Amino acid sequence: MKCEMLPVELAKAYRLINHGPTVLVSASHEGIDDVMAAAWCCGLDFTPAKLTVVLDKANKTRELLENSGYFAIQVPTVAQRELTHQVGSISLRDNPDKLARCQVDLFRRSESDVPLVSGCAAWLLCKLIPEPHHQQTYDLFIGEVIGAWADSRVFSDGHWHFEDADPMLRSLHHVAGGHYYAIGDALDMKEK
Amino acid sequence: MKCEMLPVELAKAYRLINHGPTVLVSASHEGIDDVMAAAWCCGLDFTPAKLTVVLDKANKTRELLENSGYFAIQVPTVAQRELTHQVGSISLRDNPDKLARCQVDLFRRSESDVPLVSGCAAWLLCKLIPEPHHQQTYDLFIGEVIGAWADSRVFSDGHWHFEDADPMLRSLHHVAGGHYYAIGDALDMKEK
Repeated sequence: MKCEMLPVELAKAYRLINHGPTVLVSASHEGIDDVMAAAWCCGLDFTPAKLTVVLDKANKTRELLENSGYFAIQVPTVAQRELTHQVGSISLRDNPDKLARCQVDLFRRSESDVPLVSGCAAWLLCKLIPEPHHQQTYDLFIGEVIGAWADSRVFSDGHWHFEDADPMLRSLHHVAGGHYYAIGDALDMKEK
Repeated sequence: MKCEMLPVELAKAYRLINHGPTVLVSASHEGIDDVMAAAWCCGLDFTPAKLTVVLDKANKTRELLENSGYFAIQVPTVAQRELTHQVGSISLRDNPDKLARCQVDLFRRSESDVPLVSGCAAWLLCKLIPEPHHQQTYDLFIGEVIGAWADSRVFSDGHWHFEDADPMLRSLHHVAGGHYYAIGDALDMKEK
């Protein structure tokens, strides 16, 4: 079964990050692309779908999205754990060949210039909602989700189904340093 | 091996929520205690340790922490999945006996009046940093972590070690409705 990148209804896009995965953040400006890892990305609203992400001032990706006004959040997989750890450890400022070195393969959809990372489990295309006080004081950025897609092998009908797929497609959850967890067993509670 | 609630160094408190668990939020004001579940809780800074949490205007817990200026974030376990789902589904506004009905056992530490939920894997005591624009526009609250503790069976020396403990002590990660995941396998990457 191959990856099929299927659209996710925007009202359900929060479900792609609701379980707290570590994400990849990508952006582009004036021909420069960058990708970084972020553990501090979180849902903020359902409709219109919004999310927050914390981006340190040292990150080149932050500068790119501040200038372009657009970015993507994507959910990397266990198979991408080395890539995720590397793009979170190396800066484009010191390493102009960062993306090649980290073996990041980018693609673009026709509707947007924001680069997306191949091989992820989900992609959320976001428009920056400028909030200068949040951004300067807390390094906190707010995005409105304007497009969402997921790999149908692990997300369909508005739900993740990691339990039925290759364990290499599970999401990553960072603790600190080189210490991560994969998402685990499904637990279903009856609605009362 | 019994639960031992050990202090966590504040500079490492972010690690208690870095892997994206669904949390319980508790607060108290003028003798009224409440506890709710929240999937949208996220690290914001290392030192001083800060976090964000999204709290809908309908929640009584929000009113209590707005009035008292303090709250706690705690990491519930797989064993507490029913409790977590119930406190996230029932409102104290309509059910004055909510906490008894959800079988929530509260305790307090000597240093604070904020009620804490027994049986969790970790507890973060927070002081609200008032940001009226964030709170009104986005339902987004910022807390500075002023105390942190964890169950030594699953967190010690600054790291989770779910893999060495009872699976019932793993953290919960909510998707939507009654659909949750437990945290899964540890993945350790070499630092380069």
